[in-house]
Amino acid sequence: MKKIFETVPNFSEGRNKETIEQILACFKGKEDVKLLDLHRDTDHNRLVVTAVGGPEALQRAIIEAVGVAVNLIDMRAHRGEHPRMGAVDVVPFIPIKNVAMEEAIMLSRETAREIWETHHLPVFLYEESAASPARRNLANIRKGQFEGMPEKLKIAEWKPDFGEKEIHPTAGVVAVGARMPLVAYNVNLDTDNIEIARTIAKSVRHINGGLRYCKAIGIELKERKITQVSMNMTDYTQTPLYRALEFIRVEAKRYGVTVIGSEVVGLVPMAAIVDSAAYYMGLEDFNIDKILEAKMVE
Amino acid sequence: MKKIFETVPNFSEGRNKETIEQILACFKGKEDVKLLDLHRDTDHNRLVVTAVGGPEALQRAIIEAVGVAVNLIDMRAHRGEHPRMGAVDVVPFIPIKNVAMEEAIMLSRETAREIWETHHLPVFLYEESAASPARRNLANIRKGQFEGMPEKLKIAEWKPDFGEKEIHPTAGVVAVGARMPLVAYNVNLDTDNIEIARTIAKSVRHINGGLRYCKAIGIELKERKITQVSMNMTDYTQTPLYRALEFIRVEAKRYGVTVIGSEVVGLVPMAAIVDSAAYYMGLEDFNIDKILEAKMVE
Repeated sequence: MKKIFETVPNFSEGRNKETIEQILACFKGKEDVKLLDLHRDTDHNRLVVTAVGGPEALQRAIIEAVGVAVNLIDMRAHRGEHPRMGAVDVVPFIPIKNVAMEEAIMLSRETAREIWETHHLPVFLYEESAASPARRNLANIRKGQFEGMPEKLKIAEWKPDFGEKEIHPTAGVVAVGARMPLVAYNVNLDTDNIEIARTIAKSVRHINGGLRYCKAIGIELKERKITQVSMNMTDYTQTPLYRALEFIRVEAKRYGVTVIGSEVVGLVPMAAIVDSAAYYMGLEDFNIDKILEAKMVE
Repeated sequence: MKKIFETVPNFSEGRNKETIEQILACFKGKEDVKLLDLHRDTDHNRLVVTAVGGPEALQRAIIEAVGVAVNLIDMRAHRGEHPRMGAVDVVPFIPIKNVAMEEAIMLSRETAREIWETHHLPVFLYEESAASPARRNLANIRKGQFEGMPEKLKIAEWKPDFGEKEIHPTAGVVAVGARMPLVAYNVNLDTDNIEIARTIAKSVRHINGGLRYCKAIGIELKERKITQVSMNMTDYTQTPLYRALEFIRVEAKRYGVTVIGSEVVGLVPMAAIVDSAAYYMGLEDFNIDKILEAKMVE
């Protein structure tokens, strides 16, 4: 059975088309690598690539793309709204099919080592691959950003996992790690009262006593005159989408508010949707191996 | 965008392992063809193969497999419970991705012509490919089975679409055509009263005034002491699964009966499940292009 991983590297270049093309070329026309999606943002000055493939092929593509970014992106001149610490800001590896998280962790560590050895870009291991709890959270690692990294690396606890206590002069540092697929899932409420959306968001998110693998905030959709509980589901295998939806429905009742719809932003693994379909349809003995397309990508 | 068809040929051999292996070999290790599933039944003495692929590759695999069946299966000696009229009983082509029904019809007609020209097996075009309404329904064509075909073919209206008014002496005749994916979908009821299941089945099926693309019967699940509405959804794009489920739930209420679950038998296209998930989750702007795996098989 073919092992399939996803990677979603973020590059600090959202404007220069030539650089972007050269980065994308690393994922195109390669055996066992498929470029699924790309999002470039000129305000953020950032490029987000989504690719899937086998472990060796995906690793080679990443190493090549990191090389392009290190050569062409000079962080000393980089301006953009999104926080960033390097020419390649972050490289997550996500287990998709026929692979366990342990294998994604191994792949991320091997790739991190090779990034350092080949391109002399210091690497922090994050999320599931982190060597200490303080390094699990990407925001912790990135704090200080590119400009603050030279000082930060001198602090004993912030020595990179691969590399010395010095940043790459033009490319900074990068975070590499394994994580579960993130699902951006939003639930719309038929109220324009943002306080209600915020209160429900607090009740559903893990940090305030809600669901284990759910981050949430309340936001306004001003044009539609409604509000939304905007969520990041960090492990849909443990906290399924339907559970968050039904949780919010129940909470909304307190305020006489009803759920009028929901949305998934970006790509979502089939299992996250199939799982919720199975719940609502009461499907017995169902799993994604019964889906034609799932058999096709085996 | 890669065109993907499915084919589910039925062969009249469910016992002889060597013959079965030779048929399966036609679908294995071929560029652009993937054998997804196989079901062999010794009582039926029948082999059902499920394969997907591009039009040319799938056609070549089918022509080769028909050749194997024509050479190795002698219908004069065939006994089995399932009605059948040839060594290859039926070859449906199903549009799966980036193809319209029209293209499946064309593919079925080209394949039918080549089956006749290469293997001298007379072909009836059925379902969407049928040249007349009487030939749409496979059961109509197959009536009389292998033993009755020599006489049937002499009737003017039963001349094959490809071939003469004579069966292949050992391989009989075959039906080839295009159709939508069939979804076998069953809904379980918390009653052991078969009359209730039968009455609900009648109300939901097209022939008695129900949903357009739904065939249904009521059956008993004796071990579980419950009953079931067992359905064939013949076009889930027009009559979605959730609609049949909710229809049955509403009808069941008349009898104080509740739906306790449902099940899909065999492989189901992702869109059929995603569509029902979108209904229950109230998903806005959702379609299978947002599913990671759907992008992977593009």
